[in-house]
Amino acid sequence: MRRKKALRGAAGCPYSMLNRRAATLTVENNLIVTLHVIFAVKEFCPQAQIVKIGTMGEYGTPNVDIEEGWLEVEHKGRRQKFLCPRQASSLYHTTKIMDTDLLWFYIRTWKIRATDLMQGPVYGLFTDECAEEERLLPFFNYDEIFGTVLNRFVVQAVAGYPLTVYGKGNQIRRHLNIKDTLNCVRLSLENTGKKGELRIFNQFTETFTVNELAERVQRVGNELDLNVKIQPMENPRVEAEEHYYNPAHTGLLELGLEPHFLSDEVLREMMELVMKYRDRINHDAIFRGVKWG
Amino acid sequence: MRRKKALRGAAGCPYSMLNRRAATLTVENNLIVTLHVIFAVKEFCPQAQIVKIGTMGEYGTPNVDIEEGWLEVEHKGRRQKFLCPRQASSLYHTTKIMDTDLLWFYIRTWKIRATDLMQGPVYGLFTDECAEEERLLPFFNYDEIFGTVLNRFVVQAVAGYPLTVYGKGNQIRRHLNIKDTLNCVRLSLENTGKKGELRIFNQFTETFTVNELAERVQRVGNELDLNVKIQPMENPRVEAEEHYYNPAHTGLLELGLEPHFLSDEVLREMMELVMKYRDRINHDAIFRGVKWG
Repeated sequence: MRRKKALRGAAGCPYSMLNRRAATLTVENNLIVTLHVIFAVKEFCPQAQIVKIGTMGEYGTPNVDIEEGWLEVEHKGRRQKFLCPRQASSLYHTTKIMDTDLLWFYIRTWKIRATDLMQGPVYGLFTDECAEEERLLPFFNYDEIFGTVLNRFVVQAVAGYPLTVYGKGNQIRRHLNIKDTLNCVRLSLENTGKKGELRIFNQFTETFTVNELAERVQRVGNELDLNVKIQPMENPRVEAEEHYYNPAHTGLLELGLEPHFLSDEVLREMMELVMKYRDRINHDAIFRGVKWG
Repeated sequence: MRRKKALRGAAGCPYSMLNRRAATLTVENNLIVTLHVIFAVKEFCPQAQIVKIGTMGEYGTPNVDIEEGWLEVEHKGRRQKFLCPRQASSLYHTTKIMDTDLLWFYIRTWKIRATDLMQGPVYGLFTDECAEEERLLPFFNYDEIFGTVLNRFVVQAVAGYPLTVYGKGNQIRRHLNIKDTLNCVRLSLENTGKKGELRIFNQFTETFTVNELAERVQRVGNELDLNVKIQPMENPRVEAEEHYYNPAHTGLLELGLEPHFLSDEVLREMMELVMKYRDRINHDAIFRGVKWG
């Protein structure tokens, strides 16, 4: 029962690709819940700002620069500003495109307000506020279904499991530390958007290829005597392994975000904490072979 | 019970704006059902072509020309073809944007095939095949919740109810005869799209403003001694009442569609059939005051 509840509350890209049941749950969770929140705001507190966590995955990896949410399109001599064209590479990310469209529809119609934070994969185990008190540590997903790539690599390194690089490993993704995630939400709340506005920020601080991440984890892990191996494998996902990528991300910096970049020291801190609890790692969860096809 | 079933099966733009329950049902119906059809095709008949009825309402009324589904976007010197940017003016139409995105995601991922017919409001009561046999007449919605504008005006004219023009009445919409609707589906089935392709056709034959439709119904109605009145009223919808509008619609003509245009004769035939059954008109359904706000 507890496991079922966890699945209902969680959002995940490989999870959404598991089977029809998981796909249905993903659509229902992301859209019906967003719909109900919008109705609740309209009915009970129309001045409130909705802050929604979106995802950089909505944009996919287009051959054009990615702006922060909006694009002025010129076509046959006429112009209009639209939501950036988006095409994602999992059902989960596709439903995030949809809930952005849902928000934008009701914002136009009811003049409510919202900020959509297009977040990259988050890594990290703690913020400064909870680092000293382990009972306050947040949820940590390191498994194939819900874990993000760097968290997975860190646990794989500690567990003696070869790092699972999918395909060529040249997929570029944008990352941020969990500390920055929470600051982005705080900055969005403290600097409210306007009535009738869908404000969109691209929420990440750095971009890395999967190979770059694997090599850093290997280097730092080996300094900790972990003997880390990298194991490229056939890509279970349908995604571009070589692609152009140039996403803007200035909005949150302008609001005052001070990024925590990924240093060897940050990686070492993560690994040392995971090493402390290495006997709790569930090896069966590390790789479960979910395929997109 | 019968009424409830009808609502579950129906799709409607004012219906989706009624309340939270109707909104939830609209999201569930359009997305979960589309999702299940996609899974069924993948599992049992991956070669099959899905023909989905979309809607011209997905595009809304942008300030740029509307192409047939796809737009080559140029941005900072780079180019990519995307689904046309779309923003709709009801929740129903927004969920149709979403189910197009859903189809397009699984087509990219699973290389299935589909045709999405972006249909304008359909008018008419019969096709040539069923005109002689009234038991075969299709479902006819003339009420405010599910009826399309011309069907509503025809019934209002016969019922002696003033034609309900919303706002300035300069909203431009694209229309087609129910005979053309069915031919468009047939042509799409007979000329299958390619594997891995989302083929999109804009399915309409003519554009009219709401005022033009009202004036034509009034003119033809008065020839039939109906004494038709036009009653402009405050627009219950949130929509542009004056706007640029230039949608392409060549794809189905190239496949061989021979349009049935809206002539006075066509209108007269519709009105005469409705007049024959005027005592069955439910006056309470004609106007129910659904507001977008």
